[in-house]
Amino acid sequence: MNLEKLKTEVDKFASDRDWDQFHSVKNLSMALSVESSELLEIFQWMTEEESNLVKNNPAKLEKVEDEAADIFVYLLRLTGKLNIDLEKAVINKMKKNAEKYPVELSRGNSKKYDEL
Amino acid sequence: MNLEKLKTEVDKFASDRDWDQFHSVKNLSMALSVESSELLEIFQWMTEEESNLVKNNPAKLEKVEDEAADIFVYLLRLTGKLNIDLEKAVINKMKKNAEKYPVELSRGNSKKYDEL
Amino acid sequence: MNLEKLKTEVDKFASDRDWDQFHSVKNLSMALSVESSELLEIFQWMTEEESNLVKNNPAKLEKVEDEAADIFVYLLRLTGKLNIDLEKAVINKMKKNAEKYPVELSRGNSKKYDEL
Amino acid sequence: MNLEKLKTEVDKFASDRDWDQFHSVKNLSMALSVESSELLEIFQWMTEEESNLVKNNPAKLEKVEDEAADIFVYLLRLTGKLNIDLEKAVINKMKKNAEKYPVELSRGNSKKYDEL
Repeated sequence: MNLEKLKTEVDKFASDRDWDQFHSVKNLSMALSVESSELLEIFQWMTEEESNLVKNNPAKLEKVEDEAADIFVYLLRLTGKLNIDLEKAVINKMKKNAEKYPVELSRGNSKKYDEL
Repeated sequence: MNLEKLKTEVDKFASDRDWDQFHSVKNLSMALSVESSELLEIFQWMTEEESNLVKNNPAKLEKVEDEAADIFVYLLRLTGKLNIDLEKAVINKMKKNAEKYPVELSRGNSKKYDEL
Repeated sequence: MNLEKLKTEVDKFASDRDWDQFHSVKNLSMALSVESSELLEIFQWMTEEESNLVKNNPAKLEKVEDEAADIFVYLLRLTGKLNIDLEKAVINKMKKNAEKYPVELSRGNSKKYDEL
Repeated sequence: MNLEKLKTEVDKFASDRDWDQFHSVKNLSMALSVESSELLEIFQWMTEEESNLVKNNPAKLEKVEDEAADIFVYLLRLTGKLNIDLEKAVINKMKKNAEKYPVELSRGNSKKYDEL
């Protein structure tokens, strides 16, 4: 993925519409949360098995793609505003997670780190 | 960003811990929403201006980076489970958004497309 | 439940701490959403059956009670700020729902009204 | 508010439609979170001041009333499934909050208890 190019297009979309005035970091965090809930809504009455089978349902899959895209767009906008390097952030967080969830303690176990 | 490499590491992290049993698409959509709210929580009592200034606050900024990373990790997991190409999804969604929000109608205007 | 008395105590709690300055309706909607996600987090890796059995797990049940209380507190604060009568709002919404989801069409069916 | 009567009607609405099969506690926590985000969405691009003025905008206010009602309905359903007494839960939680946020430390301060 060419993340920089994607970011440029997303930023251009907002500036073409003069939307930067609405896109404070606070507001973008709200929009990101709203989009995540729209994704959640798709699955709220499905069983876990049904949710995995959405892969075979083109209409539902397209809705998931659209919501996933919206989430990613707002994530790019928000991290862009704060000059966060998303790739580096993930690498750093994975290291912290590896310490919080050592393989031996967390294997086959969904407990939160503070309950391990 | 090398998205494929990131995805491989994220998947390995889960399979090392035998967590695939918990990672139904439904559950991943819940986790993604929970992480988005943890990001939201950082900004809930800030003014919009204060939220933009988090850029200059290393401790708060690190929290934002961590939450943004968690969101991205679950987004990669969920879309991976459904074989969704995230980059393509964004490009498609941007086209739909451009139709829903024509520049002339939406300039300087935060209304939802169905109120334009 | 004596809702008015509860509301008065909740308001007093905030005014004793001079928190009204932070409690704009926008911010309260964020706090309400954050608390709802903390409730969601409790169940994110549980099966549906396990979630129903939380009734028999005093420690988990207390966590659910605490999050449910937080949600209700912010709901009372937010509706209070806008002079919304919550009981009347529920009665009105139930009437709308009865029209959107006629018994014959929606029986045993979890589809959204616009897909019925 | 006659909470018991409200609860009875909400339960009847679901049982008339044979919806109990979908209303696991896990699923209800998802629905509650989704509704909270629909409330959040109303305010996402408003300033704090604008959000407080929704009081004077009948169309927006009705939307808020509807979302607040949906949140309350799912909160009643979820706590009902777990035999939680919502009033008692609020009273207990307010006591805990009073200990976490002593008046002297938290006056005029929006910090989280673990940062006080």
